Amino acid sequence: MRTTVGSVAEMVGGRLLRGEAAHVLTNFAALDQADSTCVSFFGNPKYLEQLERTRAGLVLVPEGEARADHAVALVVVENPILAFDQIIRAYGALPPPFAAGVSPVAFVDPGAALDPEKVSIAPNASVLSGACIGDGTRIGAGAVVGEGVVIGEDCVIGANVTICQGCVVGDRVILHPGVVIGADGFGFELVEGRHRKIEQLGIVRIGHDVEIGASTTIDRARFGETVIGEGTKIDNQVQIGHNCFIGKHCIIVAQTGISGSTRIGDYVVLAAQSGVAGHLSIADRVTLGGRSGVISSIREPGGTYLGYPARPFKEDRREAMRVKQIGNLIKRVKDLESKLEGRLE
Amino acid sequence: MRTTVGSVAEMVGGRLLRGEAAHVLTNFAALDQADSTCVSFFGNPKYLEQLERTRAGLVLVPEGEARADHAVALVVVENPILAFDQIIRAYGALPPPFAAGVSPVAFVDPGAALDPEKVSIAPNASVLSGACIGDGTRIGAGAVVGEGVVIGEDCVIGANVTICQGCVVGDRVILHPGVVIGADGFGFELVEGRHRKIEQLGIVRIGHDVEIGASTTIDRARFGETVIGEGTKIDNQVQIGHNCFIGKHCIIVAQTGISGSTRIGDYVVLAAQSGVAGHLSIADRVTLGGRSGVISSIREPGGTYLGYPARPFKEDRREAMRVKQIGNLIKRVKDLESKLEGRLE
Amino acid sequence: MRTTVGSVAEMVGGRLLRGEAAHVLTNFAALDQADSTCVSFFGNPKYLEQLERTRAGLVLVPEGEARADHAVALVVVENPILAFDQIIRAYGALPPPFAAGVSPVAFVDPGAALDPEKVSIAPNASVLSGACIGDGTRIGAGAVVGEGVVIGEDCVIGANVTICQGCVVGDRVILHPGVVIGADGFGFELVEGRHRKIEQLGIVRIGHDVEIGASTTIDRARFGETVIGEGTKIDNQVQIGHNCFIGKHCIIVAQTGISGSTRIGDYVVLAAQSGVAGHLSIADRVTLGGRSGVISSIREPGGTYLGYPARPFKEDRREAMRVKQIGNLIKRVKDLESKLEGRLE
Repeated sequence: MRTTVGSVAEMVGGRLLRGEAAHVLTNFAALDQADSTCVSFFGNPKYLEQLERTRAGLVLVPEGEARADHAVALVVVENPILAFDQIIRAYGALPPPFAAGVSPVAFVDPGAALDPEKVSIAPNASVLSGACIGDGTRIGAGAVVGEGVVIGEDCVIGANVTICQGCVVGDRVILHPGVVIGADGFGFELVEGRHRKIEQLGIVRIGHDVEIGASTTIDRARFGETVIGEGTKIDNQVQIGHNCFIGKHCIIVAQTGISGSTRIGDYVVLAAQSGVAGHLSIADRVTLGGRSGVISSIREPGGTYLGYPARPFKEDRREAMRVKQIGNLIKRVKDLESKLEGRLE
Repeated sequence: MRTTVGSVAEMVGGRLLRGEAAHVLTNFAALDQADSTCVSFFGNPKYLEQLERTRAGLVLVPEGEARADHAVALVVVENPILAFDQIIRAYGALPPPFAAGVSPVAFVDPGAALDPEKVSIAPNASVLSGACIGDGTRIGAGAVVGEGVVIGEDCVIGANVTICQGCVVGDRVILHPGVVIGADGFGFELVEGRHRKIEQLGIVRIGHDVEIGASTTIDRARFGETVIGEGTKIDNQVQIGHNCFIGKHCIIVAQTGISGSTRIGDYVVLAAQSGVAGHLSIADRVTLGGRSGVISSIREPGGTYLGYPARPFKEDRREAMRVKQIGNLIKRVKDLESKLEGRLE
Repeated sequence: MRTTVGSVAEMVGGRLLRGEAAHVLTNFAALDQADSTCVSFFGNPKYLEQLERTRAGLVLVPEGEARADHAVALVVVENPILAFDQIIRAYGALPPPFAAGVSPVAFVDPGAALDPEKVSIAPNASVLSGACIGDGTRIGAGAVVGEGVVIGEDCVIGANVTICQGCVVGDRVILHPGVVIGADGFGFELVEGRHRKIEQLGIVRIGHDVEIGASTTIDRARFGETVIGEGTKIDNQVQIGHNCFIGKHCIIVAQTGISGSTRIGDYVVLAAQSGVAGHLSIADRVTLGGRSGVISSIREPGGTYLGYPARPFKEDRREAMRVKQIGNLIKRVKDLESKLEGRLE
């Protein structure tokens, strides 16, 4: 990369607040690691201190922010995160481009439906009988596309992903390495002292524009469908049980678990390491804090919930404050006791 | 599928409580999604409201339950879940049937012991030297059966599963995709400022009829064996440390972790996202609630434990109730203080 | 194995405290499973009861420990765990030795850089274009080494591991099966009601002598590097977010999660199922207890923290003790109320 402050400002539609348009930039870095050759950005108030000290060649800042006294130049943009993203897309190390073709050491069952000149199948991938893969989709090395699986167009199926028989994946879906879609749900009945398997004969259906992180697992429905709604983004190591119905445009952060048959609305956010018990409903636009655990349905849309069992944000904070007062209470009760003792004698 | 209310009643040994035996059924669905062409069932009291409103063609209900006013027909059975299971087994989309044979693009080491006409080895699977696979067992695409591994009869080893060297798997075991059996236990000694690896030279032994969910990991023993007892069922993303001994017919739900050298009895239930510290014992038939964490042994069989640190159910509930009273306590103490203040003046 | 008490004592540099040097040993086992043919060891005070009852042929004990009344022989060593490790290394079932060569059914891109006579590539592994693998390194069956990945010397890359494009791995690194290195970080911006992907164009850099457990996932940096410092040991199913910087010689136990952009110092210990929020710093030699959750930076080195939100050990214990006193407080307040009531009448 070799560009200037002026060129960057022009590319991102920003306004030069300070510094010279001709200053040369050759790299990008975070505020605390940037030197005068680097573009950087201020996108999170947590880094205010870093902003004040950064020696970056150019910092992209939001309107009204000028505290980067040591930076060579400042450019004001509407959204520094998006603007910076534009720059690293132009100059960064992008993933290998789509290259159509089936590797000679991939396995594609003769009964699979795909256009070998319009899909990309990497070495040691396995596409089993009846699978159907849309144009523009790439299947990573070692990935397994099970019998009868349907995958849409322009998807990226990572290395060593497994999609089990019959599952359906929309368009522009990204599955990161190690994801398992459509393993059996966890269902047993205790019969004469042994756990008898309840057959799991449904599928998983993944909507358009869904992204799913490494090693996340989503179980097939007992019957019918486990559904991940359009545009929902799921992080690594998330577990979603059978027959769950996840709405559209949700954010589900790493290591969260959702038990079977739970319905999650649209635009719901589940922060990291949270959990939702089975057979519940969570309304649209609810936010669940990190490590929270929901054990009863949340029917009111839009609230923020914390703790285990999860409760409204304010309630959780209030109780946490009260617990901190126990020490003080003990002292006051002791005091009262001795005063009263004195009076009663 | 095309059947009638009468045929279904006969198949499951049920009694027609309401509706016509000739009514035609072509599908199955959950209560809230069923229309008059669908068989459904009422197996969980949480769905009482759905039962009352369902428009299913046939609902399988337990004895004494007749509230499905809008359903076309009701059939009484002893256990609606099992009866419904019978129906979806008869009419549902079953997994691909067992097809004996070794894929020409699977790798089977010449030193492996298996009957190629009685096992099923999928494309890109690897069976390494000294491995031994029983008749009727299928090895999924991309799965790796390590050196000297012994697998019994009629097992289903999912796609991209890894079984490391020397481990032993019983009969009728199901390992879902992404499972890792026999990675090294986590053991180090700090020597002169560096963590020195303690070699892990034991194995994992998995009993008959065990089922293990997607991406679960079970570490090999340091020496000797990590054991999963017969009939135990383990959900997705469970972690079991080295030298653990898990009893028979346990249920271990998703995202639970068990640290090394812990012994779990028979018929123990560990609910989702729970944890058990290392070097502990848990008695038979103990149930651990979701998200609980056990940090000392539980020697009495049969109890239910909750919380972190886990304690008996009643004790946990009692303390939770008490915490809720702090606000009230603060008010009462303030009241006492002002009353006493008044009297003392 | 066939040795004697005397030979073992000599091998580990120990002193025979009791028993006959000529006693024959043919196996090794834990204290509670050992018989008179077995070497065992006492390395954890939790097993004192087992020590007192063991019938082992030889127990390795630390200085000053002689309570193994039923054992045939005792040998005193400085560190029984390390001494026992020496014995199982000499006599135990070691993993298959390194065997140089590229399996004929592995895929190695012509553009990859490796010496086929000095590395070991197992069946169905895929080494993609531009990858570079050091001498003495073994790549397990089904593993995927992405485009441009650099792996050092003498590494063990387990079966079905995925290392994504551009990532860098040091020397003597062990990655257990199912590990995913360099999947995209989890980053989105909400634009007109849809989550727009923030491209993740950095890499993961793993230092020398790092060990990473089964199914652990480490995300690539948005730009720049996610770093795992030299000598750090990570257990199974750990999740490390994009742009994290983990110091040297840390211990990160199973199912722990670290959110993006967090910096962890050297010699930090994160116990099982713990979590650290994003954009934080944790100082050197801090220890985090099991299931703790850190939501603000810990700047002071060397402390022990517990709970969620995590706080200093003593503070956490004190509050836990106070919560237990609420029942007693309620009683005392009631008592005060009735006494005061009596006095005021």
